[in-house]
Amino acid sequence: MELTNEIRQISRVLQTPFLVMDLKYVEKNYYDLVRNIKDVRVFYAVKANSHPRIISLLRDLGSSFDVASRGEIEKLLSLDVPAEKLSFGNTIKKVEDIAYAHSVGIEYFAVDSEMEVEKIAAHAPGSKVYGRIATSGADSDWPLSRKFGTDVEHVISILEYASRLGLDAYGVSFHVGSQNYSVKNWETAIQDASKVFKALRAKGVNLRMLNLGGGIPVKHVREIPSIEEIAACINASIEKYLGFVPNLEVFIEPGRSMVGDAGIMVTSVILKSKKGNEDWLYIDAGVFHGLTETIENFRYEVITDVEDNNLKTFHLAGPSCDSVDTIYDDIKLPRSISYGDILYFLNAGAYTTEYGTHFNGIEPPRIYFVDELVEFTEKRVKKEEL
Amino acid sequence: MELTNEIRQISRVLQTPFLVMDLKYVEKNYYDLVRNIKDVRVFYAVKANSHPRIISLLRDLGSSFDVASRGEIEKLLSLDVPAEKLSFGNTIKKVEDIAYAHSVGIEYFAVDSEMEVEKIAAHAPGSKVYGRIATSGADSDWPLSRKFGTDVEHVISILEYASRLGLDAYGVSFHVGSQNYSVKNWETAIQDASKVFKALRAKGVNLRMLNLGGGIPVKHVREIPSIEEIAACINASIEKYLGFVPNLEVFIEPGRSMVGDAGIMVTSVILKSKKGNEDWLYIDAGVFHGLTETIENFRYEVITDVEDNNLKTFHLAGPSCDSVDTIYDDIKLPRSISYGDILYFLNAGAYTTEYGTHFNGIEPPRIYFVDELVEFTEKRVKKEEL
Repeated sequence: MELTNEIRQISRVLQTPFLVMDLKYVEKNYYDLVRNIKDVRVFYAVKANSHPRIISLLRDLGSSFDVASRGEIEKLLSLDVPAEKLSFGNTIKKVEDIAYAHSVGIEYFAVDSEMEVEKIAAHAPGSKVYGRIATSGADSDWPLSRKFGTDVEHVISILEYASRLGLDAYGVSFHVGSQNYSVKNWETAIQDASKVFKALRAKGVNLRMLNLGGGIPVKHVREIPSIEEIAACINASIEKYLGFVPNLEVFIEPGRSMVGDAGIMVTSVILKSKKGNEDWLYIDAGVFHGLTETIENFRYEVITDVEDNNLKTFHLAGPSCDSVDTIYDDIKLPRSISYGDILYFLNAGAYTTEYGTHFNGIEPPRIYFVDELVEFTEKRVKKEEL
Repeated sequence: MELTNEIRQISRVLQTPFLVMDLKYVEKNYYDLVRNIKDVRVFYAVKANSHPRIISLLRDLGSSFDVASRGEIEKLLSLDVPAEKLSFGNTIKKVEDIAYAHSVGIEYFAVDSEMEVEKIAAHAPGSKVYGRIATSGADSDWPLSRKFGTDVEHVISILEYASRLGLDAYGVSFHVGSQNYSVKNWETAIQDASKVFKALRAKGVNLRMLNLGGGIPVKHVREIPSIEEIAACINASIEKYLGFVPNLEVFIEPGRSMVGDAGIMVTSVILKSKKGNEDWLYIDAGVFHGLTETIENFRYEVITDVEDNNLKTFHLAGPSCDSVDTIYDDIKLPRSISYGDILYFLNAGAYTTEYGTHFNGIEPPRIYFVDELVEFTEKRVKKEEL
């Protein structure tokens, strides 16, 4: 998302930290997916950013939603998203929550174990289940395939078991890993998925759905493949490996790629100090207040308003009394940066405010949308004119 | 804290996860400090667990409080804690929050940099400031001395600067690191602190306060020194190194050691699965829901109700769709453990619920106190009798 002059202006006035978002990027991201991936049905992964305005926009665009918990289901229903648009994609569910999801009309459930199949058969009988295969997670920032998913043979056996227990063995899902940089990984995963389809077809169980999961990357400090390249690989791989499946349904569960580039985290410097040889800079957002993903050294592109080309390496830390709340140990920033200067963390619309805590009695960053900022700016201009 | 039959009983009835706390341990911990450390004034580090019942109990016992933010100050004032009982111990403060603290009557402020001194001189003129020296952090679970504190020479210069800017250069603080296992570290830190007292006395600045910080350990899987051993070392070191200071005031800022052993985190197994060679167990609390400190492999003692001496090594993970939400990769638990079985994380009263997020739409664990549980149990017994 572009760091406009308007955002720079308002950042000097509003209390930081906050996440500023522009819904037009979300809309573009949605259309980029449905236009490029053939016949795809988008299930937005709500956990990336569950702000009601994002949910409502995607609802109006026709999106479906991937939900992780009863809490998310309740939120979406309260925003008038129909239950048939929801998929319960968490492979770890409480039986009460499965029963609740079934009672409100949710049809799709993810599984990667026998026990989950049994829970769903008992508490959401007849539901459509899809089995999650593990991927290598290679060349992604967060491989998601140890805790989640299992090998191809196991998924085959799980879905066969589901079918025996009266469930509708419906499809296969995978996740190539969050922020996946290698297009080829989608092909490998689709090829693996096709093995499940084939093995089950031989047993008389006809799967009908492929769930591509998430993993489409957002631009930060490293080059990323375009959505067109990824989509071309996905389309060709589906045709090549799953061409034999009549009327295959294709789901995708974008989280980060739907909202990541639609937000900028705006933070302020609240302390600068030199200790021995180390230069430290402290800001009002941190590992427990909006920048949680940096705990594993996830690198955002960071920009300041300070006009000083003389750079220096800083330790950058958050505002809480916890040493874990250190963002980067080696960030280059203008030497003259000081109290009150702004740091913008670009493309921070996903997985930031969702992890917000009140640790140390410090509020998590709030979210503003650019149209609200326009109103603020107009009010302010009017005030100054008086 | 003892895992009583009462807690085991109620855990099968109440919805998990929750933290159950017993205030009598908090009371004992408070008295253990004031009885063993000579003339000490306790400032409870609110960030460890800010539940109003804990604050109110400590207020009634006569405790003072270490606060990290405006949010914590507001909370304590609303609980009728007088401002003179508060110390603003975070070395990273916004100027607005310094001004606010000063306006409500807070006298004590921590500093470890020139800029923080300038901020306090401008926004809380005349206040008492104490300089934080860094320690090695050796033999502690979380060294807190890179982000916080600075070397002895620097603290001397900072406090001298504070005095020149009209502040009351009041004392020295340190933190030996959270969960510090080596008694000797307190002596080293007190010896370092005495260097600051001496150097400033030579410049005509008479410090009057030593702040011992936190770091007293709570028993988990490793043996810990007793409070008596730690106190004996502290008392002897103060006499040895700071005996020359007339009417020295001694502060201490316990967080973990005040509430850690006063709580048990009660969680339930919600999925068990075997993937390849790996056995996975999933529970309803996790890295983003109460067990945040395990992200750096902090080991709790974990107990189950399952009667099975045949143990097996599991990967233990939380309920969210995030692979970071993996608690331990090598925990030994009964082979037959299954859905609905309870896992108790002992001595989890500090730094658990305070880090709670709503990530994935999942609520953070709530807190119950044992007296509330007694009520629940009585109600239940009555109901069963009907």
